[in-house]
Amino acid sequence: MIVVLKQNPNQTQLDSLIAWLEEKQISVNKSVGTSHTILGLVGDTAAIDPDLISALEIVEDVKRVQEPYKHANKKFHPEPTVIRVRDTQIGGGTLTLMAGPCSVESEEQIVGIAKQVKASGATVLRGGAFKPRTSPYSFQGMGLEGLELLKIAREETGLPIVTEIMDIEHLPAFKDVDIIQVGARNMQNFSLLKELGHQEKPVLLKRGLSATYEEWLMSAEYIMSGGNHNVILCERGIRTFETYTRNILDIGAVTVLRHLTHLPVIVDPSHACGKAWMVPKIAPAAVAAGADGLIIEVHNDPEHAVCDGPQSIRPEAFDALAKKLHGLHRYMQEE
Amino acid sequence: MIVVLKQNPNQTQLDSLIAWLEEKQISVNKSVGTSHTILGLVGDTAAIDPDLISALEIVEDVKRVQEPYKHANKKFHPEPTVIRVRDTQIGGGTLTLMAGPCSVESEEQIVGIAKQVKASGATVLRGGAFKPRTSPYSFQGMGLEGLELLKIAREETGLPIVTEIMDIEHLPAFKDVDIIQVGARNMQNFSLLKELGHQEKPVLLKRGLSATYEEWLMSAEYIMSGGNHNVILCERGIRTFETYTRNILDIGAVTVLRHLTHLPVIVDPSHACGKAWMVPKIAPAAVAAGADGLIIEVHNDPEHAVCDGPQSIRPEAFDALAKKLHGLHRYMQEE
Amino acid sequence: MIVVLKQNPNQTQLDSLIAWLEEKQISVNKSVGTSHTILGLVGDTAAIDPDLISALEIVEDVKRVQEPYKHANKKFHPEPTVIRVRDTQIGGGTLTLMAGPCSVESEEQIVGIAKQVKASGATVLRGGAFKPRTSPYSFQGMGLEGLELLKIAREETGLPIVTEIMDIEHLPAFKDVDIIQVGARNMQNFSLLKELGHQEKPVLLKRGLSATYEEWLMSAEYIMSGGNHNVILCERGIRTFETYTRNILDIGAVTVLRHLTHLPVIVDPSHACGKAWMVPKIAPAAVAAGADGLIIEVHNDPEHAVCDGPQSIRPEAFDALAKKLHGLHRYMQEE
Amino acid sequence: MIVVLKQNPNQTQLDSLIAWLEEKQISVNKSVGTSHTILGLVGDTAAIDPDLISALEIVEDVKRVQEPYKHANKKFHPEPTVIRVRDTQIGGGTLTLMAGPCSVESEEQIVGIAKQVKASGATVLRGGAFKPRTSPYSFQGMGLEGLELLKIAREETGLPIVTEIMDIEHLPAFKDVDIIQVGARNMQNFSLLKELGHQEKPVLLKRGLSATYEEWLMSAEYIMSGGNHNVILCERGIRTFETYTRNILDIGAVTVLRHLTHLPVIVDPSHACGKAWMVPKIAPAAVAAGADGLIIEVHNDPEHAVCDGPQSIRPEAFDALAKKLHGLHRYMQEE
Repeated sequence: MIVVLKQNPNQTQLDSLIAWLEEKQISVNKSVGTSHTILGLVGDTAAIDPDLISALEIVEDVKRVQEPYKHANKKFHPEPTVIRVRDTQIGGGTLTLMAGPCSVESEEQIVGIAKQVKASGATVLRGGAFKPRTSPYSFQGMGLEGLELLKIAREETGLPIVTEIMDIEHLPAFKDVDIIQVGARNMQNFSLLKELGHQEKPVLLKRGLSATYEEWLMSAEYIMSGGNHNVILCERGIRTFETYTRNILDIGAVTVLRHLTHLPVIVDPSHACGKAWMVPKIAPAAVAAGADGLIIEVHNDPEHAVCDGPQSIRPEAFDALAKKLHGLHRYMQEE
Repeated sequence: MIVVLKQNPNQTQLDSLIAWLEEKQISVNKSVGTSHTILGLVGDTAAIDPDLISALEIVEDVKRVQEPYKHANKKFHPEPTVIRVRDTQIGGGTLTLMAGPCSVESEEQIVGIAKQVKASGATVLRGGAFKPRTSPYSFQGMGLEGLELLKIAREETGLPIVTEIMDIEHLPAFKDVDIIQVGARNMQNFSLLKELGHQEKPVLLKRGLSATYEEWLMSAEYIMSGGNHNVILCERGIRTFETYTRNILDIGAVTVLRHLTHLPVIVDPSHACGKAWMVPKIAPAAVAAGADGLIIEVHNDPEHAVCDGPQSIRPEAFDALAKKLHGLHRYMQEE
Repeated sequence: MIVVLKQNPNQTQLDSLIAWLEEKQISVNKSVGTSHTILGLVGDTAAIDPDLISALEIVEDVKRVQEPYKHANKKFHPEPTVIRVRDTQIGGGTLTLMAGPCSVESEEQIVGIAKQVKASGATVLRGGAFKPRTSPYSFQGMGLEGLELLKIAREETGLPIVTEIMDIEHLPAFKDVDIIQVGARNMQNFSLLKELGHQEKPVLLKRGLSATYEEWLMSAEYIMSGGNHNVILCERGIRTFETYTRNILDIGAVTVLRHLTHLPVIVDPSHACGKAWMVPKIAPAAVAAGADGLIIEVHNDPEHAVCDGPQSIRPEAFDALAKKLHGLHRYMQEE
Repeated sequence: MIVVLKQNPNQTQLDSLIAWLEEKQISVNKSVGTSHTILGLVGDTAAIDPDLISALEIVEDVKRVQEPYKHANKKFHPEPTVIRVRDTQIGGGTLTLMAGPCSVESEEQIVGIAKQVKASGATVLRGGAFKPRTSPYSFQGMGLEGLELLKIAREETGLPIVTEIMDIEHLPAFKDVDIIQVGARNMQNFSLLKELGHQEKPVLLKRGLSATYEEWLMSAEYIMSGGNHNVILCERGIRTFETYTRNILDIGAVTVLRHLTHLPVIVDPSHACGKAWMVPKIAPAAVAAGADGLIIEVHNDPEHAVCDGPQSIRPEAFDALAKKLHGLHRYMQEE
């Protein structure tokens, strides 16, 4: 970490900063230039918050040299992480398609869709039981009953299930879920992340609406530093000034994360754009950019399920899309 | 709510949408124009998620006419909400100054600062016991012990205390706290909001890093619809493209919220800019814009408490600032 | 256009608004609801600025129903525009690769690169003569001399040339350029756009750093309404809160623009990420999303041309990439 | 400037970078750490574009230590710049109120408003003759005729005039204008900035919609490096994810610019929020934050001038506001 001091820094404050750093086992190299003095911090700087230092009166600016994440850092674990759930795997050259409805509505619905998406090549079933909704007056999901229906669909198809947790207190009920999803709005719910680090289920960690890559990886680090290294990152669009689509898919995130981390990276085109008609157009871009998979909303009857319909494509559309994506994946992997 | 349909919408899908709306007791007026058909939705549209409708294939665009929040809506409660805690009040023409350290560190520290800020005119003591930190390797606060120290400081000074909750499971320990703070990163932790709606303590709800006014008010609505109407909104800066300061203080939020809601609005200049030297320059702007109060980080020894220092001003600086702000508040209230 | 009025609007102001609209040949249908009055505006509303109306005291909100662009609107011109320059075309199912150095540096350099990228399958040569630079102290390009060198490279290879204009006064010197580029920072330089509408050369219009789709299309409309319908849109990344990459490539823009306009859409992966190593990873995503082409920076000696190197790939890398992209384009076009 | 290299950088590329820097009279200190090598660049680094270096394959990150602007830098010119126009001044402890209509419409209108705002304490008259409009179909201003009417209003009142230039070719017509305004959309129209540096009139430089402080100051530097040091910076709101108001006023910009530059800083509350009713609420915040002045839209008949009305307050409202602001300015300047 490099600390650029203001001109003529107050000596007492500077001594105090250096003493504080040395207490933390950081050694400090001072280099005095014509216009600025620069401190080079050597040691385990991961625990040093650059915001805290940059806010000091004597400090002009702070620059990290080492990434603050360790377990998630590709430099220390160059091999890609492969996550195995039941008969399938995520990462390591496979293209994983997770598919299913936004919300679980009934046994018939979820089992029906599960069978269809399996036939089309999906290897994980998604479906919301607890739904994070902006409004307290909107449908909040079927809750525990929805979890049970997902398990029935798993039994019928063999597909592992992924579903969102919203509350630490529900963790016991998620014991039998295959992949636990953390939604964008909970990406920095640190209490929840810590708990998920103390159990073994893989975690699908969605990117926060305005989270930087580093913040996202630090949230993964919360889980990993607790002992659970099975984290899947999911890009789902970021918030910008543009309002035509609900979010903007940051396709470059796939490339950047490949460079920074060994964790698998998947893309959620349904939430990124929020419009069903855009999903089949955008999903191929994620595969072409090298994503390990996609999570796609599929509904068998969008017209009679408005609450679910908007960003969901139909099983037939998913079938055509899945074929296209698998062919594309093969093409991209050819030398 | 107004729904603009695409040209030549599929009739089956349109019938299905209308049937679904009517099931929800919404009546639909259809108006056919030269290039577009428009549906006017009349009834309680608060439970209708516009994103869901706008995602339908036949829909071009959706526009709310009524705000989706009720309890928080000034139209239905024109009188400003005044929140009383111990001997003080928030809202209703008072200028409330909440002050104290970022983190509680020791009895001596918190009691010392509490006495100083009280003497300078603060009426609420702030101090973090549970700290939301981006990195799992950073100091996470004193936890329950910090809560106890805050209570000692309250006993010594009579100042009510405000401190952040990060976990529903801690709620029993917050029974004796005067105002419960929800941090920016938990603004859409809906499970937490619901629980806070089922108890009586006032809640200080910070704006999420990239939350719109409507989303913020909908989070207040989560608390209020549970029965707890004592919500204080706190603008603390939003995330933008500019990185010189940690966030950008949205001073217009004060004006807009005054227009939309009856809830008190306070401003946190310390987190908005993240630089102590900026706080005394920016705080007056909040008072001039009509905020009901400010929450300001004050530390008695920033040099020896780097973890806390950056955005904290010293008690002497707070004393001068508080005097300036109170005079400014009186000037702004003169006819 | 729909205008939602505030409750109990001032009658004089309302009459004045209606009179003003009728003067502009807009007929107004008033519909009075329980809580709000709504005005439906029928006629050519393209000239009505919604911001102006929404700022009126009596107005709660304004919603466009018709897009404000006409010439650029796919509804009125469903057939895709195909732009022909010399022996090549842009749009209409072709994949166009525009390639070349950031800046023209010498005859040897530009001719050498032109030959190499042509051999790899590029059909347009790019190269900057006038360079928009944030700092007045940075190299500003070779200027008119650079234009001459581009023409020599064209003569040697037959490749049409695209280069950026920064100043209306240079227009005569661009008479012999094949495609005139308007940079992101000039996307709303309306004087320049108007002039480009009064000449015939195709215009490559880059998206502004924080331009919405509508603003971008309105800038195209400035050119088209002057008589020049040969506009190519170029997505080059938008500005967000993330600073790891220079910009964020908005891959969804390709899909959205396909839906809204008949103009060809190309993608600039070099400026979108600002890092050469990311270009070959991101470029395929643009083809998979359906772009009509890419504009890619290629330099034959990045190490000795730091000013140019950072976001430029080498000719060999371009050669491999171009092959991959053409195969991908064929795969995506298969039924 | 500090350059952090990737681990094990390619030696040829590193040598090439160092040679290139030394050619530019920059000396390079190499410091090899356990995990990273760091280059410290000493000399006049203003001409070095950090984006270019950070894009090199061997480079992990680049950090400026010195600001890239010189003429605009407070470090080299600690005294605040005071700009004198006719009988008034901008900067140096004065509160300047610039007021007038969005667009000049007629002699009667502009002279009438000029007299009224002068009586209320405005010292500069604003009024648009050339209007930058998103749509080519919107009213584009009276043009040269509008300039003449502004001069008549100046003659009648003695108020200096400020108005926007959109085109270099209009510069001769602006010879007799007192302050030339550069709009937000032209903040990086470098050709225009250069020309304005070669003449003597003061320039009011509005911040671009998504311009960082540094980019803004670099645009000022374009003007100043040409010889014209009379630059006034105008904060007018930035673009964010929030759409309730047209832009978000960045009140902290006033504080930050005071710290970075000696140039006067004024605030435009009318464009920042885009709603007339918000202007009197937000304007005091700018004065409390220490702005040197405000530029406010005032119209004598907003109801009959819809094109102008939305963000304009009436002369009576301006009169009350101006009094409040002057009292506030006096209060803020008291010790």
